[in-house]
Amino acid sequence: MQKIINTNDLAFLLYELLDVERFTRYSRYADHSRDTFDAAIELALKVGAETFAPHNHLCDGDEPRFENGKVVMRPEVSEALAVLRDTGLMAAAQDYERGGMQLPSVIAQTCIGLIKGANVSTQAYAGLTIAACNLIMAHGSEEYKRRFAEPMMEGRFFGTMCLTEPQAGSSLADIKTRAVPAEDGSYRISGNKIFISAGDHELSENIVHLVLAKLPDAPPGVKGISLFIVPKYLVNEDGSLGERNDVTLAGLIHKMGYRGTTSTMLNFGEKGGAVGYLVGEPHQGLAQMFHMMNEARIGVGLGSVMLGYTGYLHALEYARERRQGRPLKERDPQSPMIPLVQHADIRRMLLAQKAFVEGGLSLCLYAATLSDEKKHAEDPLVREEASGLLDLLIPIVKSWPSQFCVEANSLAIQVHGGYGYTREYPVEQFYRDNRLNPIHEGTHGIQGQDLLGRKVPMQDGRFYQALVKRIRSTIAECEGVSELQVSGQLLGEALTTLERVTEALQAIRKQDVERGLANAYLYMECFGHVVVGWMWLRQAQAALRGLQGNGVQPKAFYEGKLRACEYFMRYELPKPLALAEVLEQGDRTTLEMPDECF
Amino acid sequence: MQKIINTNDLAFLLYELLDVERFTRYSRYADHSRDTFDAAIELALKVGAETFAPHNHLCDGDEPRFENGKVVMRPEVSEALAVLRDTGLMAAAQDYERGGMQLPSVIAQTCIGLIKGANVSTQAYAGLTIAACNLIMAHGSEEYKRRFAEPMMEGRFFGTMCLTEPQAGSSLADIKTRAVPAEDGSYRISGNKIFISAGDHELSENIVHLVLAKLPDAPPGVKGISLFIVPKYLVNEDGSLGERNDVTLAGLIHKMGYRGTTSTMLNFGEKGGAVGYLVGEPHQGLAQMFHMMNEARIGVGLGSVMLGYTGYLHALEYARERRQGRPLKERDPQSPMIPLVQHADIRRMLLAQKAFVEGGLSLCLYAATLSDEKKHAEDPLVREEASGLLDLLIPIVKSWPSQFCVEANSLAIQVHGGYGYTREYPVEQFYRDNRLNPIHEGTHGIQGQDLLGRKVPMQDGRFYQALVKRIRSTIAECEGVSELQVSGQLLGEALTTLERVTEALQAIRKQDVERGLANAYLYMECFGHVVVGWMWLRQAQAALRGLQGNGVQPKAFYEGKLRACEYFMRYELPKPLALAEVLEQGDRTTLEMPDECF
Repeated sequence: MQKIINTNDLAFLLYELLDVERFTRYSRYADHSRDTFDAAIELALKVGAETFAPHNHLCDGDEPRFENGKVVMRPEVSEALAVLRDTGLMAAAQDYERGGMQLPSVIAQTCIGLIKGANVSTQAYAGLTIAACNLIMAHGSEEYKRRFAEPMMEGRFFGTMCLTEPQAGSSLADIKTRAVPAEDGSYRISGNKIFISAGDHELSENIVHLVLAKLPDAPPGVKGISLFIVPKYLVNEDGSLGERNDVTLAGLIHKMGYRGTTSTMLNFGEKGGAVGYLVGEPHQGLAQMFHMMNEARIGVGLGSVMLGYTGYLHALEYARERRQGRPLKERDPQSPMIPLVQHADIRRMLLAQKAFVEGGLSLCLYAATLSDEKKHAEDPLVREEASGLLDLLIPIVKSWPSQFCVEANSLAIQVHGGYGYTREYPVEQFYRDNRLNPIHEGTHGIQGQDLLGRKVPMQDGRFYQALVKRIRSTIAECEGVSELQVSGQLLGEALTTLERVTEALQAIRKQDVERGLANAYLYMECFGHVVVGWMWLRQAQAALRGLQGNGVQPKAFYEGKLRACEYFMRYELPKPLALAEVLEQGDRTTLEMPDECF
Repeated sequence: MQKIINTNDLAFLLYELLDVERFTRYSRYADHSRDTFDAAIELALKVGAETFAPHNHLCDGDEPRFENGKVVMRPEVSEALAVLRDTGLMAAAQDYERGGMQLPSVIAQTCIGLIKGANVSTQAYAGLTIAACNLIMAHGSEEYKRRFAEPMMEGRFFGTMCLTEPQAGSSLADIKTRAVPAEDGSYRISGNKIFISAGDHELSENIVHLVLAKLPDAPPGVKGISLFIVPKYLVNEDGSLGERNDVTLAGLIHKMGYRGTTSTMLNFGEKGGAVGYLVGEPHQGLAQMFHMMNEARIGVGLGSVMLGYTGYLHALEYARERRQGRPLKERDPQSPMIPLVQHADIRRMLLAQKAFVEGGLSLCLYAATLSDEKKHAEDPLVREEASGLLDLLIPIVKSWPSQFCVEANSLAIQVHGGYGYTREYPVEQFYRDNRLNPIHEGTHGIQGQDLLGRKVPMQDGRFYQALVKRIRSTIAECEGVSELQVSGQLLGEALTTLERVTEALQAIRKQDVERGLANAYLYMECFGHVVVGWMWLRQAQAALRGLQGNGVQPKAFYEGKLRACEYFMRYELPKPLALAEVLEQGDRTTLEMPDECF
């Protein structure tokens, strides 16, 4: 039995909660139906369970090595990626005319998400390729689409994103990689990049690096960043491979988790300059990157959810099978032991995991539907609101699962007791793998500043207000519905608190940006819990519809949703909100702590 | 520079907060002085920094292997343990007449704690030996003390605790290991044990296993457990080693962290029965084990603190040295980058770590002073109250650091950004090592039930009331002291809430034990934060005395304590208390979740 996803839950979220079948009414998806969506999902799950999952643990214990200038790794990685390539899923969202499946983003994300849940490390080679390919498709010339992106869709070329440099970290303004124009219209790139996932390997015919670099006349800071395609092997006009480009693998970085994915240090231009091709206009690199960052950040959030989800399913199975201890009321030590799941403390830990992973999954999939609406809805107003809501929610979508699904993985270990801590069981790997997600694609700190400093106030808070309105409207629908009353009320109170805090912090921020944003991360925790609370209330609504109508899921499934919703509202929602007063006051404790007092 | 401890902080806690110098007035410690305490501490820190820390990372990457029936490991482990043995610190707390240093428990714990901070895995061989030795000293006959315990004090024999069995886990009532009387007065032991740390190695002349087993006439359940000494090699009357006992290493378990410590499966009696010696009376094994469990659990809490502490010091150094980004108000991208520590979000993460690790350390050391008072105070009333308070606090001492110092380790990773996630930096190992602590020596769930179901109500809540009284008295002292007013008030409110919850849950527990204890873990989180809040308020008091009087620490140090206290009260204390209402109502959400609804 696969323990990647509860397929009932996935169907519930996609069709009963988010009604993704409505996308078949969009002209772009007119040839699709629930059947074609389900076929893609089933294919991805099958490939994930049968081809990716079996070597997940093997690659963790036998990670890629750097030998004689090349990366050596277990053969299962290449084999699995070949199977994935042959499914065509790497081009799931691309146009038919380019050989793609033209599936909605929410379905494409779901498919790759299932592969992540099976084996996040091997998946990363494909996931990064899809992201890099999308970037070229969005901003590259037709020639570059043909020469570089199309082979990526086919899975013949893989891709990377080369942003980070050793001296700059999150501070992209400070990158030093240079691009000098060459006579043939291309550029010569030189500089050092670090933490480049999938930066070198022998898994594909070629590797297409997307590199942020600065032109000689670049203005300082982030406004002077341009985006370049720098292939490992040059690509001739006819698509055949030319000579090796001036990109060198300087070394591998050894990570706590995600061990199957190479993390590399790359040197560009050690022999005079790597050949690079400018994508779009000069100095637009960051904007171009940001354009694709929403999808990449949904991908991180979803990856984190899927690691949490598989951990939850493993813990649930263990808790049902493992017998240990007796009910507290039972005083006869010779009475039979009961399954772990019958202990309240174990149920508490399972409920928390369920609340985190199913809540996180609903959030990520909702964000993916916004991405579809933004791009392909017919009504421009719908497109505009979806775009704004997605921008607003992205920091939450990236960071909330990265925090609470790591917590879910920790709870999965705890349910397993001592076994959970051993590498003989899989949950400790999920925990290690997942710990990367709060860091890459923008740390929690970066996301918090993005939310409070940019996204909430953008367009005078228009999309923030739109989100609040949507949440209020769901709460209003729950009034008088006995099964949803308590949850609706608790969420309503939390939302009121969040609005008060938001207003206070925006006022402070205008006066003093450092003080206003000092606790942006803690603000984001409150915001995230309210948003996920909303997702849970909507899930509870949908479950109640299922219970009262002719829902296709088992009754216990719907009841579980109602109970998990109540659990979230009662047990989880209050925790970050407990800091509302501190936030509202613009407390200066963290702001003013002098360095020498640590 | 060692990054194991802030020595100013340790001196502050021991002498300014806890006044451990007063123990020199106890007759047992009359030969000691602050100088001898400090000499032992300095020695331990030197050995930790110079001999244990350097191979901590090496053993993580090159863990013990099982080859030809023997355990093979890096030579640094044996070398470091030999150095520790030669310091005499393994007998730090033992009587002079047995070759010990007769140091107070709080100093002995501090010394071994520093070794834990340096290298928790190598330390474990010594730490388990000290614990096993103490158990024999408390309950064994003079002959066993001489034959087994004294060589352990000398570091010639090492020790283990063999409790857990594959089928029983935390449920000791269900152990199956049997002990059959032999004609010579010894016993023949047979059964399987799992997760036995340091269960086999070639580091010492012999290994003394302390094994829980059941006699043929044993009553069922925990009342039928007896404690046996089972040496790896039999020990002749003259102390020389005899033949190999019937104990077999069945295999090694591979852990997420703590990799340098062997975790073993041991088979007793495969060839007819391992020779074992009954410790004390039959059927008293669990009581005997519990007698020593307080010290063992202080050890776990302290170990968790020390891993958090070293992670914090590494993060602090990194945050001061690494330059990245600019102040939010600075719009010139060519202005110099600032050290990480100047970003408010980084300071928030450092403050949280400081609050957790210094708060946790004060708690563990306070518990160790109670242990000293319990054993050696002259006034029997002092002994009795110390004993009761220690029993009450032990679940907190064990579990609070195990939770919040793992969180500190996670924050240390986060401060390092991508580097923190790599094995090229040490913080990820601390995080992995520390994740064991919420499991071994009693999981969070077990501790929560112990606190709420046994410790709080014991003797009609007498020691719970005594603790509340002590906390109230500290709060009362802070009234009208402007620097402590806010913290005192916040703690007072939290304590009132905790008392309300306690009363409600005790009433529910008497009616319905399952419901009363369903959320015992969450109750323990509230309790733990109030207790650590109390520790912080007392630290703030002591810091203020230092600032206003002639304190020996730098002014910034004392100010840091005041600020960290306020941070804890404002930012951390409210979070678990946010569930007070849910707890007080005896909420049934976790209790009543049906299995089929997951």
